[in-house]
Amino acid sequence: MPIVRIELLPGRSTETKAKIASAITEVLIKEGGGSREHCIVLFEETTPDNWAIGGNLVSSPAFAETMRAYKERTAAKG
Amino acid sequence: MPIVRIELLPGRSTETKAKIASAITEVLIKEGGGSREHCIVLFEETTPDNWAIGGNLVSSPAFAETMRAYKERTAAKG
Amino acid sequence: MPIVRIELLPGRSTETKAKIASAITEVLIKEGGGSREHCIVLFEETTPDNWAIGGNLVSSPAFAETMRAYKERTAAKG
Amino acid sequence: MPIVRIELLPGRSTETKAKIASAITEVLIKEGGGSREHCIVLFEETTPDNWAIGGNLVSSPAFAETMRAYKERTAAKG
Amino acid sequence: MPIVRIELLPGRSTETKAKIASAITEVLIKEGGGSREHCIVLFEETTPDNWAIGGNLVSSPAFAETMRAYKERTAAKG
Amino acid sequence: MPIVRIELLPGRSTETKAKIASAITEVLIKEGGGSREHCIVLFEETTPDNWAIGGNLVSSPAFAETMRAYKERTAAKG
Repeated sequence: MPIVRIELLPGRSTETKAKIASAITEVLIKEGGGSREHCIVLFEETTPDNWAIGGNLVSSPAFAETMRAYKERTAAKG
Repeated sequence: MPIVRIELLPGRSTETKAKIASAITEVLIKEGGGSREHCIVLFEETTPDNWAIGGNLVSSPAFAETMRAYKERTAAKG
Repeated sequence: MPIVRIELLPGRSTETKAKIASAITEVLIKEGGGSREHCIVLFEETTPDNWAIGGNLVSSPAFAETMRAYKERTAAKG
Repeated sequence: MPIVRIELLPGRSTETKAKIASAITEVLIKEGGGSREHCIVLFEETTPDNWAIGGNLVSSPAFAETMRAYKERTAAKG
Repeated sequence: MPIVRIELLPGRSTETKAKIASAITEVLIKEGGGSREHCIVLFEETTPDNWAIGGNLVSSPAFAETMRAYKERTAAKG
Repeated sequence: MPIVRIELLPGRSTETKAKIASAITEVLIKEGGGSREHCIVLFEETTPDNWAIGGNLVSSPAFAETMRAYKERTAAKG
């Protein structure tokens, strides 16, 4: 019976969303039980101008820099 | 004082939404008490491409088939 | 098909919630159309310690004062 | 980067939730891309007294009857 | 680690949203603790046609009248 | 007029929440405009058993390890 709301950046195709909704529904029925008919998945697209992480909008240069530094650190770790 | 969020498919007119918001506010004041001034109703429109039931997007042929079968069964019941 | 989420202060009985859910479902079917079977109403209770209006928690003396002043002004208007 | 909120009835163990969160995260990374680190899954438990489908609280006898009739119809279909 | 969702009328510039996200993140780290990296702020714009207060859509003449009366009362109080 | 919902781990005192609600309301009025009276802040506490990041529940040993490694990398960066 669960209701799932997925907040994500725009850009996924309808085909991708269909796969995600189907796979998540299978996970919920297999692990959590409940009737398939009442399992609802909602996608809510939020643009990079409306989404901030660590105080910076995802659309900002400051955020890109944060992500670049993060990837560098991760790569350096091997 | 309640805050009501209504997630629905697009297509209702502003007039329809005005009626829904007004009627729901009356229900909440009559049954639940509280001040009218702080009763808030928000509509959030979600397209059929972003809404899945039973693992199928509402915009998909598979969903239409599910609904057709459901109506048939209901009609057969009388 | 709408999904309705109602955020409210605790204290309503199950009987009251049942009446609210039923009445709101009727409103949505009558005004907005759609199948009754997929109309969902969720109640989410939020305590006065977790709810602020105008910058004051509903549980605070400052909020009580705001409401008292508001009612006075409204009564004075007739 | 998605944020997933799952509204469900109480009763799933922490182990079950861990499996659901892990599996959903894999689905989102595989199908939708994005960094694992920013994939968030939130569970929100809502009791049967706070959840209505078709105008009846899930905790009500009327809802149990609806579900029984639904299963009968489905079984009759084979 | 908090996730903040801000529902507001459209019309704020990206620059304004950037300032709001940054300031709110500072408030949450200063007062509530937790890591900046996992602090998320989401803006969700809701049009006046989809937002009702006191049973009237914000886009309706009735709402404008309510607000005018409210401001008059407040001004009269001095 | 904004409605702010803050999802956070339990453990903040009412005093802390009062400060957060007040400070966020000031930010929203200063930067975004709008009437103080209709600015609403809601806190929703979600336990570490109901919150996953990167596929691991915040209550799990795997998550603690992720955070430890992350802090080490950050410290190593200077």
